[in-house]
Amino acid sequence: MKFWDKINSPSDLKQLNIEELGLYAEEIRQKIIETVNIRGGHLASNLGIVELTLALHYVFDCPTDKFIWDVGHQCYTHKILTERRDLFASLRANDGISGFPSPSESKYDAFLAGHSSTSLSAALGFAISRDRQKQSNNVIAIIGDGALTGGMAYEALNQIGESQSGMIIVLNDNKMSISENVGAMSRYLNKLRLSGKYHTLKRNVKKAVSALPFFGDKLVYAMDRGKNKLKSLILSNKIFESLGIRYLGPFDGHDIQELIEIFSSVQNTDKPVLIHVCTEKGRGDFTAQNNPSKFHGVGSIAEKDKNEYSFSSEVGKFLLKAAETEERLAVITAAMRDGTGLKFFAEKYPDLFYDVGIAEQHAVTFAAALAASGMKPYFAVYSTFLQRAFDQVLHDVCLQKLPVRFLIDRSGAVGADGKTHQGIYDLSYLSLMPGMTVCTPKDIPEFIDILQWSLDFNRPLAIRYPKSCSNIYNTNAPIVMGKWEKLKTSDNKIHILAAGNRMVDIAQSIDDVNVYNTLFIKPLDIDVLNTLNKKGELIITLEDNVLQGGFGQSVRSYYGASLHATLETVAHPDKINDNRDIESTLERSGLNRENILRIIKKYT
Amino acid sequence: MKFWDKINSPSDLKQLNIEELGLYAEEIRQKIIETVNIRGGHLASNLGIVELTLALHYVFDCPTDKFIWDVGHQCYTHKILTERRDLFASLRANDGISGFPSPSESKYDAFLAGHSSTSLSAALGFAISRDRQKQSNNVIAIIGDGALTGGMAYEALNQIGESQSGMIIVLNDNKMSISENVGAMSRYLNKLRLSGKYHTLKRNVKKAVSALPFFGDKLVYAMDRGKNKLKSLILSNKIFESLGIRYLGPFDGHDIQELIEIFSSVQNTDKPVLIHVCTEKGRGDFTAQNNPSKFHGVGSIAEKDKNEYSFSSEVGKFLLKAAETEERLAVITAAMRDGTGLKFFAEKYPDLFYDVGIAEQHAVTFAAALAASGMKPYFAVYSTFLQRAFDQVLHDVCLQKLPVRFLIDRSGAVGADGKTHQGIYDLSYLSLMPGMTVCTPKDIPEFIDILQWSLDFNRPLAIRYPKSCSNIYNTNAPIVMGKWEKLKTSDNKIHILAAGNRMVDIAQSIDDVNVYNTLFIKPLDIDVLNTLNKKGELIITLEDNVLQGGFGQSVRSYYGASLHATLETVAHPDKINDNRDIESTLERSGLNRENILRIIKKYT
Repeated sequence: MKFWDKINSPSDLKQLNIEELGLYAEEIRQKIIETVNIRGGHLASNLGIVELTLALHYVFDCPTDKFIWDVGHQCYTHKILTERRDLFASLRANDGISGFPSPSESKYDAFLAGHSSTSLSAALGFAISRDRQKQSNNVIAIIGDGALTGGMAYEALNQIGESQSGMIIVLNDNKMSISENVGAMSRYLNKLRLSGKYHTLKRNVKKAVSALPFFGDKLVYAMDRGKNKLKSLILSNKIFESLGIRYLGPFDGHDIQELIEIFSSVQNTDKPVLIHVCTEKGRGDFTAQNNPSKFHGVGSIAEKDKNEYSFSSEVGKFLLKAAETEERLAVITAAMRDGTGLKFFAEKYPDLFYDVGIAEQHAVTFAAALAASGMKPYFAVYSTFLQRAFDQVLHDVCLQKLPVRFLIDRSGAVGADGKTHQGIYDLSYLSLMPGMTVCTPKDIPEFIDILQWSLDFNRPLAIRYPKSCSNIYNTNAPIVMGKWEKLKTSDNKIHILAAGNRMVDIAQSIDDVNVYNTLFIKPLDIDVLNTLNKKGELIITLEDNVLQGGFGQSVRSYYGASLHATLETVAHPDKINDNRDIESTLERSGLNRENILRIIKKYT
Repeated sequence: MKFWDKINSPSDLKQLNIEELGLYAEEIRQKIIETVNIRGGHLASNLGIVELTLALHYVFDCPTDKFIWDVGHQCYTHKILTERRDLFASLRANDGISGFPSPSESKYDAFLAGHSSTSLSAALGFAISRDRQKQSNNVIAIIGDGALTGGMAYEALNQIGESQSGMIIVLNDNKMSISENVGAMSRYLNKLRLSGKYHTLKRNVKKAVSALPFFGDKLVYAMDRGKNKLKSLILSNKIFESLGIRYLGPFDGHDIQELIEIFSSVQNTDKPVLIHVCTEKGRGDFTAQNNPSKFHGVGSIAEKDKNEYSFSSEVGKFLLKAAETEERLAVITAAMRDGTGLKFFAEKYPDLFYDVGIAEQHAVTFAAALAASGMKPYFAVYSTFLQRAFDQVLHDVCLQKLPVRFLIDRSGAVGADGKTHQGIYDLSYLSLMPGMTVCTPKDIPEFIDILQWSLDFNRPLAIRYPKSCSNIYNTNAPIVMGKWEKLKTSDNKIHILAAGNRMVDIAQSIDDVNVYNTLFIKPLDIDVLNTLNKKGELIITLEDNVLQGGFGQSVRSYYGASLHATLETVAHPDKINDNRDIESTLERSGLNRENILRIIKKYT
């Protein structure tokens, strides 16, 4: 590791020559593979962007120049180059560096990322701010082609074209969204990529480039230098040019010299310019390269060792079975086919399966219309990403009382992804919507039962669950709307109301208490609540969700001024929780056995 | 009103000839002007779309064919034609017809609307559902050019291009979003409109049309019939064609015959096709035509008679003053310049003003980046539309603790717009976000004070207020973070905690109680809460917001198991509230003087 040890900042990097940069790229790749194998994380996307990141840091001056990473899962090389080399082994660990850009972690991270398609809006903010403050730094957004399926990116492109503020948009086109290419936009980018074959166009390129109003000469220079290996053409891209954004590309994203030349040529541009770069996801790792979807997000060794049941694989199995008899089944994902357990379903029933791209808003309204016209739609989505469609769930689904089934994966504390991905708001934001039914199954058998039950449920329905399930209780209680199940009985006047599998696990670990599995968070089981409401009884609610607007507050509000029992509500407090493993995240919020024992002791 | 009395359904309409349709259009126009003058509503957009709506109902068979109106504020002619002629005088009244399409009101309304840019997603749902169920109806989305600034529309276009399901998208291009043309997309559509001048292209049109794979012949027929008055050209539209959607247009949206011909030619298309129609907002009404922005939404006579103070005009005045000294001020609207009180500011300080189009998501992240780079951004937005940016407020603003100031207009019950526009969720969805400060000013002077105070506030801040303010208390209490003001003192042990001006008005109307103006909803004034927490005291919270996750539940949750006083929380219940005037909306939820007196009586 000749270069690895030498380089820890962008200024170190600038000492290397092109050939050395290439060698260093391979060292970084090895480190990323090693580290992700231990710590988990995003492998394929980070292997694809090493040269691109090196070229960016070689040409631009971070942190004076602002790098805005879209989604941010591809920032590992950036972190290595920006004084976090020695922390890289702590990637995604509890007190280590985040797997995403985080301004609170480093001055080199200009803007927080985690959710898709925000970089163009943020870049415009930085660009306009720079102009208003008469500064001269570059603003560079690095965005994948997948993120261009998110509508917010178009909202930004629209204003970028209008404002004409100087910024550089690097479109990192790896022909992959998260699971596979979706949508006409991706097909269109593919066509562009292939345009490298149109040799007849080549001769016109240099002339066209010279005519570009704001950096013609520099570009011609860049092309002359690289002409022998010029694979890319400067083409007028219909969409971006129509929106007033200069389009350049496509370029080979692994050709460091070419990238350095093109980036140098657009430095300090005072107009918006988009540079289309083609990269190979998983480059340098044979396994990841040939199955980048599988290696999009990789679990850590510790996670792999756990022997846990997966909710998402049950989703896939259930839907495969349902499809045999339910002609009107429609299964929707927003670029999360594999993560939500739908891989086999998508392969077997492509006509019942809709991957809409990273487009949660559209997914929800699309599902609402399917429901309005007699279909049975299921939208499988991560809790944190459903936030993007809050308005559509409320306005298009709930106000019309339509039977869209939301299968909300990765709910509750998420572990290594940290604060931007916590699924701890969904019970609150769903419970406030009129007519929404919200469920938290306690184990896999009950999950299967409620999925079956959902097929004929005729109103908006949300089923939320974390990634995995440690315990199977197998109680075979029938699903009854709004009814809770008593899991454990004691003479002690202590009653734990536990929402979902993690909370049930904690409750069941405590002796001499009554435990209820509160499958329905909305509506509440008021029969149980009324029975428990006596002076001298202690009721404790447990939820892997924020306190505000969540299950505990619903229970307390139901009792209102008539509360006779003592009620304790345990939930995540109103603080940003950036812990990176599930246990410590829960513990920090008092969602663990010890804290519940402490609460019980306080009253007994 | 020769035709008005005869026609009450699409089948009646189909009996008319072209000339009669034109006469009928003028009758409808008169009725719309008359009715909106009395009942309020959207004038200019409805006057612009009369002929287009007539042509659609003349050609297609609603409700078998599905009409999906984007935003839906332009549906008056549709309602008149679909068995609601005699109810039209009740437009927007409490028990009358809604100003928006509503499936619960009529079988002719296929999908609820109110928020922008949802129609393409919904249309795709209906189209795929039709194909899956082997039905043969048409699906027609009618979308304005303004709605194309909303990102969700692109998410849908992407999947529409991919799926190639048959549907007709009518792009109603009236060169107006809601306040004025914004964004490069609109500029682009303008260019297209002008393309009617390119006569040299004309000769190629017929040939090009014949080459269209799926309805060539029919189209040629339509063009031959109309060739003498052919103003429109069949052009290949870059953006839509790139996305796999056949583009036709632009056509004159007031030429009924031409519209009928083009709609007939695309009937039963099995591919997506976009028809670009140019209409004139406010057509037929001289005042509205020349100032369509002013006549976008018009208040009813009853509303105009009220002598009330406007929060939004104070926003404008405050920002005008602030701009004199605050160089880093940045003021953002999402196509609601006039409604949020920013007209004069935008005219005087165009360089500090950013109208991003109907693009709340982008607006918020853009504002976050402005804040991250040292600016002082204000985003003025209607409560119901901020729902669109829930994820961006949480992820980009709150998780980064950035000082974006949200000026949330039309909060609480909204009156005539009804269920799709209720601003009664914001206290809940904002309070659940970590680190958000939420305020509800009691009157105009306090609003001005808190605006002034917000200039140097350095964290996420939401100030929410309804359209108007009836009473001025002028108490001149200084703004202190998290502190409440005591407005009225009594020896009675009754304490009303009133959130915002409407609630303060109710509380102040009650004798012999203590009244607190709870300016800060988050954080709560725990000193006041602690002082009141004694056995025998009655505390009543009042909020113009849903109960779930709102102010009352926050207070109850703060007290938790230590509550000694009696607490009653009055808020909107978990039901869809489609009342159309503010008083009855509040009354239905018990947010009125009588109900509070009833509660007090219960305990005393």
